[in-house]
Amino acid sequence: MSDPALVPIDSMMIPRFSQPATFFRTPWLEPTADVDIALIGVPFDFQSNRAGARHGPAQIREMSRLVRRFNANGGESPFDICTVADLGDAPVIPIDITRSVQLIIQFVRSLSERGLTTVSAGGDHGVTYPVLKGLAPKEPVGMVHFDAHVDTYHDAWGDLYNHGTLLRRCVEEGLIDPRRTVSVGIRGSRFTLDDRDYHRDNGMRLISFDEFEELGRAKVIEEIRRVVGDGPTYVTFDIDALDAGYCMGTGSPEPGGMTMRDAQVVLRGLAGLDIIAGDVCEVSPPLDPTNHTALNGANIMFELLCLVAPGVAKRKMAQGAMADAAK
Amino acid sequence: MSDPALVPIDSMMIPRFSQPATFFRTPWLEPTADVDIALIGVPFDFQSNRAGARHGPAQIREMSRLVRRFNANGGESPFDICTVADLGDAPVIPIDITRSVQLIIQFVRSLSERGLTTVSAGGDHGVTYPVLKGLAPKEPVGMVHFDAHVDTYHDAWGDLYNHGTLLRRCVEEGLIDPRRTVSVGIRGSRFTLDDRDYHRDNGMRLISFDEFEELGRAKVIEEIRRVVGDGPTYVTFDIDALDAGYCMGTGSPEPGGMTMRDAQVVLRGLAGLDIIAGDVCEVSPPLDPTNHTALNGANIMFELLCLVAPGVAKRKMAQGAMADAAK
Amino acid sequence: MSDPALVPIDSMMIPRFSQPATFFRTPWLEPTADVDIALIGVPFDFQSNRAGARHGPAQIREMSRLVRRFNANGGESPFDICTVADLGDAPVIPIDITRSVQLIIQFVRSLSERGLTTVSAGGDHGVTYPVLKGLAPKEPVGMVHFDAHVDTYHDAWGDLYNHGTLLRRCVEEGLIDPRRTVSVGIRGSRFTLDDRDYHRDNGMRLISFDEFEELGRAKVIEEIRRVVGDGPTYVTFDIDALDAGYCMGTGSPEPGGMTMRDAQVVLRGLAGLDIIAGDVCEVSPPLDPTNHTALNGANIMFELLCLVAPGVAKRKMAQGAMADAAK
Amino acid sequence: MSDPALVPIDSMMIPRFSQPATFFRTPWLEPTADVDIALIGVPFDFQSNRAGARHGPAQIREMSRLVRRFNANGGESPFDICTVADLGDAPVIPIDITRSVQLIIQFVRSLSERGLTTVSAGGDHGVTYPVLKGLAPKEPVGMVHFDAHVDTYHDAWGDLYNHGTLLRRCVEEGLIDPRRTVSVGIRGSRFTLDDRDYHRDNGMRLISFDEFEELGRAKVIEEIRRVVGDGPTYVTFDIDALDAGYCMGTGSPEPGGMTMRDAQVVLRGLAGLDIIAGDVCEVSPPLDPTNHTALNGANIMFELLCLVAPGVAKRKMAQGAMADAAK
Amino acid sequence: MSDPALVPIDSMMIPRFSQPATFFRTPWLEPTADVDIALIGVPFDFQSNRAGARHGPAQIREMSRLVRRFNANGGESPFDICTVADLGDAPVIPIDITRSVQLIIQFVRSLSERGLTTVSAGGDHGVTYPVLKGLAPKEPVGMVHFDAHVDTYHDAWGDLYNHGTLLRRCVEEGLIDPRRTVSVGIRGSRFTLDDRDYHRDNGMRLISFDEFEELGRAKVIEEIRRVVGDGPTYVTFDIDALDAGYCMGTGSPEPGGMTMRDAQVVLRGLAGLDIIAGDVCEVSPPLDPTNHTALNGANIMFELLCLVAPGVAKRKMAQGAMADAAK
Amino acid sequence: MSDPALVPIDSMMIPRFSQPATFFRTPWLEPTADVDIALIGVPFDFQSNRAGARHGPAQIREMSRLVRRFNANGGESPFDICTVADLGDAPVIPIDITRSVQLIIQFVRSLSERGLTTVSAGGDHGVTYPVLKGLAPKEPVGMVHFDAHVDTYHDAWGDLYNHGTLLRRCVEEGLIDPRRTVSVGIRGSRFTLDDRDYHRDNGMRLISFDEFEELGRAKVIEEIRRVVGDGPTYVTFDIDALDAGYCMGTGSPEPGGMTMRDAQVVLRGLAGLDIIAGDVCEVSPPLDPTNHTALNGANIMFELLCLVAPGVAKRKMAQGAMADAAK
Repeated sequence: MSDPALVPIDSMMIPRFSQPATFFRTPWLEPTADVDIALIGVPFDFQSNRAGARHGPAQIREMSRLVRRFNANGGESPFDICTVADLGDAPVIPIDITRSVQLIIQFVRSLSERGLTTVSAGGDHGVTYPVLKGLAPKEPVGMVHFDAHVDTYHDAWGDLYNHGTLLRRCVEEGLIDPRRTVSVGIRGSRFTLDDRDYHRDNGMRLISFDEFEELGRAKVIEEIRRVVGDGPTYVTFDIDALDAGYCMGTGSPEPGGMTMRDAQVVLRGLAGLDIIAGDVCEVSPPLDPTNHTALNGANIMFELLCLVAPGVAKRKMAQGAMADAAK
Repeated sequence: MSDPALVPIDSMMIPRFSQPATFFRTPWLEPTADVDIALIGVPFDFQSNRAGARHGPAQIREMSRLVRRFNANGGESPFDICTVADLGDAPVIPIDITRSVQLIIQFVRSLSERGLTTVSAGGDHGVTYPVLKGLAPKEPVGMVHFDAHVDTYHDAWGDLYNHGTLLRRCVEEGLIDPRRTVSVGIRGSRFTLDDRDYHRDNGMRLISFDEFEELGRAKVIEEIRRVVGDGPTYVTFDIDALDAGYCMGTGSPEPGGMTMRDAQVVLRGLAGLDIIAGDVCEVSPPLDPTNHTALNGANIMFELLCLVAPGVAKRKMAQGAMADAAK
Repeated sequence: MSDPALVPIDSMMIPRFSQPATFFRTPWLEPTADVDIALIGVPFDFQSNRAGARHGPAQIREMSRLVRRFNANGGESPFDICTVADLGDAPVIPIDITRSVQLIIQFVRSLSERGLTTVSAGGDHGVTYPVLKGLAPKEPVGMVHFDAHVDTYHDAWGDLYNHGTLLRRCVEEGLIDPRRTVSVGIRGSRFTLDDRDYHRDNGMRLISFDEFEELGRAKVIEEIRRVVGDGPTYVTFDIDALDAGYCMGTGSPEPGGMTMRDAQVVLRGLAGLDIIAGDVCEVSPPLDPTNHTALNGANIMFELLCLVAPGVAKRKMAQGAMADAAK
Repeated sequence: MSDPALVPIDSMMIPRFSQPATFFRTPWLEPTADVDIALIGVPFDFQSNRAGARHGPAQIREMSRLVRRFNANGGESPFDICTVADLGDAPVIPIDITRSVQLIIQFVRSLSERGLTTVSAGGDHGVTYPVLKGLAPKEPVGMVHFDAHVDTYHDAWGDLYNHGTLLRRCVEEGLIDPRRTVSVGIRGSRFTLDDRDYHRDNGMRLISFDEFEELGRAKVIEEIRRVVGDGPTYVTFDIDALDAGYCMGTGSPEPGGMTMRDAQVVLRGLAGLDIIAGDVCEVSPPLDPTNHTALNGANIMFELLCLVAPGVAKRKMAQGAMADAAK
Repeated sequence: MSDPALVPIDSMMIPRFSQPATFFRTPWLEPTADVDIALIGVPFDFQSNRAGARHGPAQIREMSRLVRRFNANGGESPFDICTVADLGDAPVIPIDITRSVQLIIQFVRSLSERGLTTVSAGGDHGVTYPVLKGLAPKEPVGMVHFDAHVDTYHDAWGDLYNHGTLLRRCVEEGLIDPRRTVSVGIRGSRFTLDDRDYHRDNGMRLISFDEFEELGRAKVIEEIRRVVGDGPTYVTFDIDALDAGYCMGTGSPEPGGMTMRDAQVVLRGLAGLDIIAGDVCEVSPPLDPTNHTALNGANIMFELLCLVAPGVAKRKMAQGAMADAAK
Repeated sequence: MSDPALVPIDSMMIPRFSQPATFFRTPWLEPTADVDIALIGVPFDFQSNRAGARHGPAQIREMSRLVRRFNANGGESPFDICTVADLGDAPVIPIDITRSVQLIIQFVRSLSERGLTTVSAGGDHGVTYPVLKGLAPKEPVGMVHFDAHVDTYHDAWGDLYNHGTLLRRCVEEGLIDPRRTVSVGIRGSRFTLDDRDYHRDNGMRLISFDEFEELGRAKVIEEIRRVVGDGPTYVTFDIDALDAGYCMGTGSPEPGGMTMRDAQVVLRGLAGLDIIAGDVCEVSPPLDPTNHTALNGANIMFELLCLVAPGVAKRKMAQGAMADAAK
């Protein structure tokens, strides 16, 4: 049972437009707070294209007012089985990539060392690397990677850390197990024809959007589950995995991708996997005056929370049982 | 044959951007005008969430300039078989829910007592109740209810009449027959897990969007037709039944719902039922700078008109025949 | 000296786009917190015209990220001489004016009874009445009222409490002293020619925008100071006192009014008066996709804070001296 | 005393967002209606630059909901001394300039022949010529011309009728008396250095914005009054006479011009002149998502109506007296 | 092998937001340049409805920064097998349809006479006729016509050349072979019920969106290939073939049409046909503040380029072989 | 006499919406082109606040279509006395400040070494330093600095080069002479009270906006002229020197500043000074859907060009005379 003080604001009592905006109206607490799941923002652009993802966390918070306590497909509310709070944003220095990467790693590590896990909102896709590094998994984890682009470039202009290289960095540093990694929704025009080689050469599974449609959602889900298996797995969702019609507020919108329905169905299909943490990235509010992208970002983030919470609850219960047994 | 004076402005003669905006460019007449079908606005928000549905009728009128005389799927134009005019907006007192509900009821009743029926544009979804009450059906009617949300709350903050309670009020007051009622497209995160109980307990059919997809459009149409049967039926369309990508200009947009194509196909599939009246609600123009939502609202309203007109024409013809026989 | 924990987030350390948005990046505390000045939102529309002021507090918080610690014209920072925090929003029931008015009164009274004063953000202009009533001044206070409209109607549709009647209610209930009240910037087309009679009949000073220009800012300041004198005074700023070019995001924008520079100069000219509290109202974010109106609202709110803080600090010091003397 | 049926909708009874939008909420009547002043739209672009002025009348109608019955500076309401109605839009053929010019002339002539005058909303500035020609003044009239540009080109691409040539056409065809014509607010970068020669060579007065500021509003008013004298005068207001900050929704916005306050003061300063008709042009709504430009257009149009109505009323009274005397 | 000087700017070296915008960042050359494929704009509206398509080329250029060198489905880059450049816009006289049609014809003819073909961006759909006429095919070509509307009206207001008549003009003047013409995606409400007769009477294939869905994409592709066969074929894409959700920035948006994914899949399915040239029309940027429509327009234009380039390359090679043989 | 090939596109022949957008429609040439004045973009954000200035050059080019050949206040056109072209953007590496600063310096130096000077468009205000360094003045130049903020911080987060430190860097590196430097329009809330000390301690003149108003424009001009004297002078214009109402599309908009008219008058008042180069910075298009800010940016850039051109022409003539004499 969660601490009553740690539940989201009840929108049936306090209207949704009221009070400062936090993720899903959860309490905004110090990073040292004792909760199970930390909702955090990582407001950083590595910025090689259209600007603005650093403003993502603020607007996702704003639009998350519209998300309610229970997922559409039923089941327990994450807020009923875990304590969940908005622990604010990771510190960043907007003009310094190197130091920002370190600061983000340290911030997340300070959480993970205390036993918390994270569901985070970027920032551009470069933030997945320091977040995952901060989580400091004991062994390489599986990864489900939703994206229009492969994100496996070696570098951009000689810099290793940015929004197009994150996946390669995660492999190189042993954060993810390439054989338990699957990229979903890849499409869009390409800089080079060999941009998918890194996946192939490293045993990473790539489900292009062409294949996504051929397989259909059910088989895509099956395939993702097969690839990542039972081990601990991280889910990262670049909002541009969606068709541009669902994410004009992003740096590199690509027509011809997933609908939000596709995303919801596939994410819900991952229930039961050992999803340890997740993020949604590349929401750039200045580029979308309708806030549609941030609304979708908030809903994706909620799906991620619904995937992460049951495992956290289970581990807590197991630890409780062990603690009880130890008495 | 309709009165020539009562046809919409001919967009092949007078460009669509010209003249004041009325619903589908029909003449704007006094509420006492002698027509078959009254197109009316009901510019009222009960406003428990994001603002602006009171501006819906004005912007739906504006975007309805783009709708032409015949439905895409052919058949007679509603304007050829009925007289149709814009009878303006129901009176409301924006700061007084109780009196506004009464004013709307009276306004619609003054029409229905003269034999007119309505196709209306909200306002938020709370206006369906007074409109239907004003239509004063002799017995409970069937209802086809498109929506993301169940709208069967008992109250909000103790108030019985608002945009989340309308369906329950309609049942309680005998305006609709719950066993001939079907809600289509329900989805979105939920305040409570038992929010679908009222449907179940009262024998109302609920087709969630999950079920919608499983069944496919053809079977959804069949199922709706089975539920409402041959009796008189009202169709209410909350614009948020559509995926948020089609209705950012609404109070509670939910990703993952129907496309406009889904809506058109299903609505057209209801042809031949005894649809006595209809409404489209929850279009909030200030929240959508592209006017996409109002465009969709105007098109839905036109589909409703195309569903209502044939029955009206048939009844007129029957009355004419009876009158002739009586001579 | 203020409690270090109660200072705003330092934008030179933590970038302005980071962290949840509160008023001027002050800490968000419970309404029971022990501070000197409560920054609060009052997210309520009485809504007789264009929608959306209920969303004002959220967007003013967002844009207040851009305001820094010191006023442009120098002097001490309000955050250095008082403890200031964001105590969240007054509770409201969006569909119930009567109860909302009571809830706002109670909320503010719970603050004023503990010795706090408020600088608040509406909501539409109807919220000034319950805020002032909640402050419960011991005797009628002076009022400086910036507005395009007189706001002295008796009622709207028979309802006494709304955005056009507030000033009359404040007079009738003895909250303000009409002879120490001055309305500044009145202009705009008028419903009736006698709409300025209430001012005249009750001895309230009205400086139309025509007179504002004739006098010039310096004399306007003098005249305001003359009218309100040395007694305790409340400042209410309807954002539509500004020319429409500075506030398209408001319900009733009127061309031909004050610039933001005018507003800043006049407000700064009130320094030294006994300004006990203040509010800025009628910012409606959905109507302004550029957020210019909310930016101006945030800056006005900061000017009000700079007017209120010195008096609060002085009274604290005096109480401290008395307490010391009593030892 | 005006016919009660011909007054605008009372916004104190029927909220401003309700009912189809007409100019100032006046009744929408057939062009054959018997009123004193016809408010008309002329939805035509001659289109040599940025698009959209053809949508001006629709959006000016929409924003004119916010204008009330009496001018800010007091005096009788135009609606109390004249009958005023929205007689719809002049017919145009959007793809045919020559025929459109003829259609507009005929439309206005059909009004002027019945004794009506017009206050009209463009369309781009090319429509002033056919409107004035339709009014068929018995002798060349004076003209007050607010604009950033001189509009005296001979032709554009060989075509004589467009938004940059209107003033020359009016002179050439004897519609206006160049010696009683004054252009106010001219500025902006220039295609040629001799673009002001036509004014000089024809004895037309040109008050550049530089001179406007040097003189100050009061002297500008004096000078306009001196130039046009007591004779019948037409006022045309190109919205780009205003600084671009007041009219981003126009084809050729120019920074550094009049504020709306300047416009209001100068227009009000023309009271008492024999203003026989007027127009506001170049409002292009698609270019201004905030609707600021259309709001300003509606307010300018109201000022024009307030200038035209007293003369109309006076002539009516004189005719009534003559008719009485003749009995 | 293409001339190195003629490749697009490399976005991996020079960021995409840098440098003036040309189509796909290709060099902007004089119309006399010696390249294989001319990317051109045709900035002309025939304007019978909502304004702004004349601004299409500029904004499509801007959004085409986001398109990369290779199509998502792999294969050679058009820039590697042909020389491709932005040859600027066809000359037009915005106020003169007749002369503009001639100017566009001459401009394209000056290219086709030198052996260049075009991939062009409108302008409204009326520009397809002069472009095709300028290409001066030796015999009537096949046409694949994506559109919501039939575009086979005889005239509008007596004018033969505009955005609703182009297809009929192309048939009448022997530019296209009606038996090798197929219109795809037709839907939307209709002015008349017989608007599809011209297709039937002239042996043109019409695949309504209803049929599109029944057939499914694969069969639609088959059917298009069957109709146009092996002969030279022109592809014209009216952006309103897409569902309004993908093209709010167009004159006549219609809900219920193709997604961008549909468009991409069907266009890619035409590979191998003898596509000699193509255009995308009706992108109207002022109507879409998110630029989603222009982004889609740029992506469609790229698909067209990918269809046109292989045939051009093949013909070049064949000519080269012949030239070599002739040595 | 300028090379006919180097004049801007003639908007009286080729409509302004046509052709790719370059600065003032001048030809886009290689950086090695032989012209007098290089119009360049510097698309770089140092980004410590709201995002997007890197998109400034593209949108300023777009809006500069609306600027004509001659300044409003008459005199020769810069295009008639100098050769002026758009030489594209300085190279930058968006994720690397240090290297970008070097690249910009080298790019500008490659121009200045060939005798060209620049009028440039940022980018945020940090780009002024490398541009000026690239111009490599032989001795410290005077500077006229329009801004809301002092821009004399020592560093931000330890980094020396960014949009708040540029002025200090320019002083430290001897690029500008502090005693010939004047900052105009300083205002806005402040991080620290001593933020104006650097100016005072280094003998730089600071005209706050308060002083600006006290002096009036004429005296401000006098004072600027007095400070910078006859020596070579650089003008840098941070767009936020303008009131926020004129520049919502900027990172740190501040209400209460100069109007565009103020800016135009003061800039024109600098005619005759030895203005060697200039820039306009901090236009961030994603933050301003109306493009008002970019329009103002384009007009400011034109004023700068009009200030720079006469001196360049004079030096050319002098060199020509010397060359002639040497023969």
